[in-house]
Amino acid sequence: MAIIPRSIQNTTNELAKLPGVGPRTAQRLTFFLLKRSQEVNDNLAKTIGDLQKTLKKCSSCQNYSEEEICEICEETDRERSKLCIVETPVDAFNLERTNFRGYYHILHGYLSPIDGITPEKLNIPHLFNRISHVAKNLPEGERLEIIMATNPSMEGEATANYIENYLKLTHDEEDVSCTRLARGLPMGADLEYIDEVTLQRALEGRK
Amino acid sequence: MAIIPRSIQNTTNELAKLPGVGPRTAQRLTFFLLKRSQEVNDNLAKTIGDLQKTLKKCSSCQNYSEEEICEICEETDRERSKLCIVETPVDAFNLERTNFRGYYHILHGYLSPIDGITPEKLNIPHLFNRISHVAKNLPEGERLEIIMATNPSMEGEATANYIENYLKLTHDEEDVSCTRLARGLPMGADLEYIDEVTLQRALEGRK
Repeated sequence: MAIIPRSIQNTTNELAKLPGVGPRTAQRLTFFLLKRSQEVNDNLAKTIGDLQKTLKKCSSCQNYSEEEICEICEETDRERSKLCIVETPVDAFNLERTNFRGYYHILHGYLSPIDGITPEKLNIPHLFNRISHVAKNLPEGERLEIIMATNPSMEGEATANYIENYLKLTHDEEDVSCTRLARGLPMGADLEYIDEVTLQRALEGRK
Repeated sequence: MAIIPRSIQNTTNELAKLPGVGPRTAQRLTFFLLKRSQEVNDNLAKTIGDLQKTLKKCSSCQNYSEEEICEICEETDRERSKLCIVETPVDAFNLERTNFRGYYHILHGYLSPIDGITPEKLNIPHLFNRISHVAKNLPEGERLEIIMATNPSMEGEATANYIENYLKLTHDEEDVSCTRLARGLPMGADLEYIDEVTLQRALEGRK
């Protein structure tokens, strides 16, 4: 095998641990880093090393934040009556690019009892407390809408079902209602290549 | 736009400077880093930061090395009569995976006078010195073969031509000969999709 300097091999190995980066891509990236200035590499190294140190989870929505309460939760001009539950922070950031102006709650995963991921692991009791608290503090007659935006996967659906069932048992439907993101054809899709479950959902949800 | 914590944005920005990594991939990588342990991130950060600090260029072949002379140049059981000229260290590492057992010389680029990349910038005078020195010290009657393994591109060919012309002018063909990597069909290629220049070269080089 090739005699590659140890530091090149080390960097290649570490880069190859990233998702979607194979050994060849990792090597190509390493040689790219070798040709850049030390300063730019230091910047990259520093942001990677510091990333977790500066971040905590917002004590309200559980999103990553540099403060105790994240910027979105701090905003007071949002719609208190809409709470969107997502699996990951990326999902929240993506929803934020739409015109949604409610609040979020990040589960950081989905329920999977077989892997030991119980409601407690996802901090779901805290979510239920938050929902009760928000519902109680809404103006008289206003209803809290919980928008389930978990992934349209087995696990995502199961997680949404669990939360929805619990809320139905513990809250009056006049106070807390549950909705789900619409299922249907993604924009730009080609009917020819759409799977039948999606097609069936699109048909059911036609308007 | 989304309110993304600054440290997430910083890491995403730095990662997006890597080749082949767009803003979305960079964001995905950042969230991947967030879920890993601090220790693994520190390792990645450290190898990136240290990469250039521990490496210099081998004073003989110009390949990256942690020592003054790289490990390949230090090996004495290689064929002194074969010197392979490549554009990049990756090319040398790839050739090393074949059964080639001569030595290498890395140009770290190709000639491009229009961009100010002159023979001096690529340290080609040093290469010529090295060739003269090796040729002079070969056993009587042995010929030094310079294998041009620059890329089959305009610039690569021009670089090889420049080196070959100089060597023809300065060395007896009995002492120093030049060869080039064969041009032809890559393994697994489909004739239908091969460009005509490659096909023409493959035809010319038939055996």
